[in-house]
Amino acid sequence: MYAFSKSVKELRSSEIRDLMKLATRPDIISFAGGMPNNDLFPIEAIDEIYNNLDPKLKKTAFQYAPTQGYPRLVKSLRKFLKDKGLPVKNNKLLITTGSLQAINILTKEFIDPGDIVLTESPSFIGAISVFKSYQARMESIPVFEDGIDLGILRKKLESLPTLPKLLYITPNFHNPAGITYSSKKRKELLEFLANKDIIMIEDDAYGDLYFDEEIKDIVRPMKCDDPDDATICYTGSFSKILGPGFRLGWLLVNQEVYEKCELIKQAMDACSPNFTQVLANEFLEQGKIYPYLDMLRANYRKRRDLMNEALLKYMPNYVKWNVPRGGFYFWFEMPPKFNASEIMPIAIEKGAVFVSGKTFDPAGVKNNNFRMSFSNMGMDQIDKGVKIIAKSILEYESKLK
Amino acid sequence: MYAFSKSVKELRSSEIRDLMKLATRPDIISFAGGMPNNDLFPIEAIDEIYNNLDPKLKKTAFQYAPTQGYPRLVKSLRKFLKDKGLPVKNNKLLITTGSLQAINILTKEFIDPGDIVLTESPSFIGAISVFKSYQARMESIPVFEDGIDLGILRKKLESLPTLPKLLYITPNFHNPAGITYSSKKRKELLEFLANKDIIMIEDDAYGDLYFDEEIKDIVRPMKCDDPDDATICYTGSFSKILGPGFRLGWLLVNQEVYEKCELIKQAMDACSPNFTQVLANEFLEQGKIYPYLDMLRANYRKRRDLMNEALLKYMPNYVKWNVPRGGFYFWFEMPPKFNASEIMPIAIEKGAVFVSGKTFDPAGVKNNNFRMSFSNMGMDQIDKGVKIIAKSILEYESKLK
Repeated sequence: MYAFSKSVKELRSSEIRDLMKLATRPDIISFAGGMPNNDLFPIEAIDEIYNNLDPKLKKTAFQYAPTQGYPRLVKSLRKFLKDKGLPVKNNKLLITTGSLQAINILTKEFIDPGDIVLTESPSFIGAISVFKSYQARMESIPVFEDGIDLGILRKKLESLPTLPKLLYITPNFHNPAGITYSSKKRKELLEFLANKDIIMIEDDAYGDLYFDEEIKDIVRPMKCDDPDDATICYTGSFSKILGPGFRLGWLLVNQEVYEKCELIKQAMDACSPNFTQVLANEFLEQGKIYPYLDMLRANYRKRRDLMNEALLKYMPNYVKWNVPRGGFYFWFEMPPKFNASEIMPIAIEKGAVFVSGKTFDPAGVKNNNFRMSFSNMGMDQIDKGVKIIAKSILEYESKLK
Repeated sequence: MYAFSKSVKELRSSEIRDLMKLATRPDIISFAGGMPNNDLFPIEAIDEIYNNLDPKLKKTAFQYAPTQGYPRLVKSLRKFLKDKGLPVKNNKLLITTGSLQAINILTKEFIDPGDIVLTESPSFIGAISVFKSYQARMESIPVFEDGIDLGILRKKLESLPTLPKLLYITPNFHNPAGITYSSKKRKELLEFLANKDIIMIEDDAYGDLYFDEEIKDIVRPMKCDDPDDATICYTGSFSKILGPGFRLGWLLVNQEVYEKCELIKQAMDACSPNFTQVLANEFLEQGKIYPYLDMLRANYRKRRDLMNEALLKYMPNYVKWNVPRGGFYFWFEMPPKFNASEIMPIAIEKGAVFVSGKTFDPAGVKNNNFRMSFSNMGMDQIDKGVKIIAKSILEYESKLK
């Protein structure tokens, strides 16, 4: 038995590994994964880019990048973000090795063991694992259809011995809750944060995957309003709009926060993969990303619709959900006495799988919820899979009585 | 002013960023960089691999990898390491985002603030930055031509209040010292570590770049002898034998150490870039790496020879060096009163640059040394650049009198 460090001692199981295994089992219909669709990657576009790369640029792709990122990608990504309304002028961009690394860097920057991180409940499992790995004290506030409730947030802050250092939220097409913060909620939250020493991480991994024009206006990042009197650290990712295999994300933060971010990244992996940075830059610079995003939105919207139709057809009426207006996820609430983990083996036995709610509970307890992703299975499997899961819930419920 | 975490508060300057800038200035002959040669990357081989990838495999390249790594790369790399004599059977391999991440993961696994890490002096600046970022107490022992001195190591241990948790060494073609541990020294060090609770990180980023047959036998990793009574964590990298832009490294450790490594990596970046993992696997699997390594060895040996000829021609006799038998680096010792940082501006003014010794001193003080890399400049520039640096030293010395 080794003398492991304090931050590592408590890490025991690997829920993420188990989830990955379930998500990629070829023999069952999996609604478990959070990965984009295997058949939708822009392979022809990247082939064309690769084969037309200037020979000098190809050499660059094999070499180290500056820690901040491949300079041309920093530039083209700035433009991409500027077009969303983000304040790229007064902030600095850091290319990260996926947006999980962006969250990790920001956590290292601000969190000492025992410091409080406020998350939503449910929340992104990757972020939960980051906060745990820095021995943060996690406190959570429930997510509703329009976001977190400010009354509950206020009460939570009053109940805490010290102010949280970080607030971590995913306002757009929440993973796993599927919801999107309303414009009103965004405004109230910004007002609430003004002049408070709480740094907000705004995780926008899914914002480009909107399914209707009305929501397109709502998903404008909160960072766009770049308040002088609050600190928002904005994170994003190429994983859902190009490919997770590129392992590229970013953070956009003010100069003072940036300086430490770059130093932290230097000691993490020196720089992100230049090979994929060069390709990602051409994808942006040549404007290939725009028609690609249109195609993605149409495809995922179609899947969302198929899924919702099947859910309406098969799900018992005590299972509740909101219809997501973008992203990858449906999130379900069952009556309090239901336990998703007990339903799961029934569903797997029948040939389909989802993820139990407690996986996304920062406290790892609440389990009358579950998440179903509609991103990565054959479209023709959605109806069949939903039917299996509905049947499994009914079977479970009949035993419960 | 933000309330930064304790581990970040002390990070102030960015020596690494300054070094990168110097190393890539196009207007001067740079011996400063630690990067492989831009003109030697296996571009044709990777083009061929990319354009012949099975379409299904290409989709895989765009998708997430398992945290451990792309399974086929894990397999082909195991074989590559097994052929070096490494004990892949009783150990587990983790693909990392460069070998710097491997060092970072191992440091996170074992180091709490204040814990002692024993390094060589001089040592790899990237590793120094990792240890600092975990608030380790760094203690160092000098490196000689055949490695660290065990007498000094013993005395150092006696002088310390607690046993070091980690010992970090680079036995092959040391960065920056250019030396290689003798077989005798390796054996003695293994005996010394037996039954001590000190975990050794064996950094072997340069071991494949040997220049003669005799040294080829000596560079056999210490991990090959996989002692039951000592713990060696072996790290390596594709950066010097394929391209840093792939951002791929690895660690080979026993099962117990591995379990935590995987959990730590999950919270760092979830997985390493699958895009480059798929390409790197083909490079190994198809055996393309072997002729490529032969070519690299011949080219870097030629550069080493040109550099040594120029050094013998121009350097004043009070500048001492060992001739490296592999890797990228010459390391120089000047009389104690010399200050490399004062010579550098003279050399830059004349059109050439090196790295001052204190950059590699864990304590950041000792500065009568400097490093010159011979990896990444035109071969025809070596003589001219060495002449400039020798002249600068002479000019500095004349003012010193």
